[in-house]
Amino acid sequence: MSEASSPALSTALAYHRAWTGHDFDRAMTYIADDIVCEAPSGRLEGAAAFRGFMEPFTHILTDSHLIAAFGDESTALVMYDTKTLPVASAPGAECLTVVDGVITHLRIIFNQAPFIAAERAADGE
Amino acid sequence: MSEASSPALSTALAYHRAWTGHDFDRAMTYIADDIVCEAPSGRLEGAAAFRGFMEPFTHILTDSHLIAAFGDESTALVMYDTKTLPVASAPGAECLTVVDGVITHLRIIFNQAPFIAAERAADGE
Repeated sequence: MSEASSPALSTALAYHRAWTGHDFDRAMTYIADDIVCEAPSGRLEGAAAFRGFMEPFTHILTDSHLIAAFGDESTALVMYDTKTLPVASAPGAECLTVVDGVITHLRIIFNQAPFIAAERAADGE
Repeated sequence: MSEASSPALSTALAYHRAWTGHDFDRAMTYIADDIVCEAPSGRLEGAAAFRGFMEPFTHILTDSHLIAAFGDESTALVMYDTKTLPVASAPGAECLTVVDGVITHLRIIFNQAPFIAAERAADGE
């Protein structure tokens, strides 16, 4: 399904464009108040917890590009690459559930290892 | 596109079912000789290098389930969760390019951090 024919993909990409465009207030308009996010660091519940996890990432984001995106009525699947200050290539994948135009569930996969290594290097370990 | 209408998804899921079913010989029948794989550990070129990377993972795999899968004529996007001996939940996402029924490019995203932590714990660090 293309973005035009998949309501879930349309919302997922609107959210994606907002956060990769450094407009997190706009990104949050696509997030349900009771969103559940399954992240590498664990399960997050509610919009505030989600914002606390995801917004700081946008502060270190310097570039991004979409690798692939698909969706149907209620589910979207998105893969992208990002360039960040500590890590040159940090790709991610998200599976998003969309209900009434907002994201109610988001599973995100990315590799924490290079971020942990960069942090240790910065700490002089 | 459903599996029936997406040639790429059909091949991607046949590959997925083979490796999650512990039949790596069968999995390799869906892999192009000159496959390029972009993995967290770096770029791998050729079927032998790919097998050397992916097959050992199937030896520690104890369970898996598909989270979402989409595709079109030439591209498939798949997300799944796996249970492994060292890591209880190790989800992954793959973007696969399929040409003439075989996978020519595979980008895989997963979190290396819990595997590194498990290895360190096993080493008594």
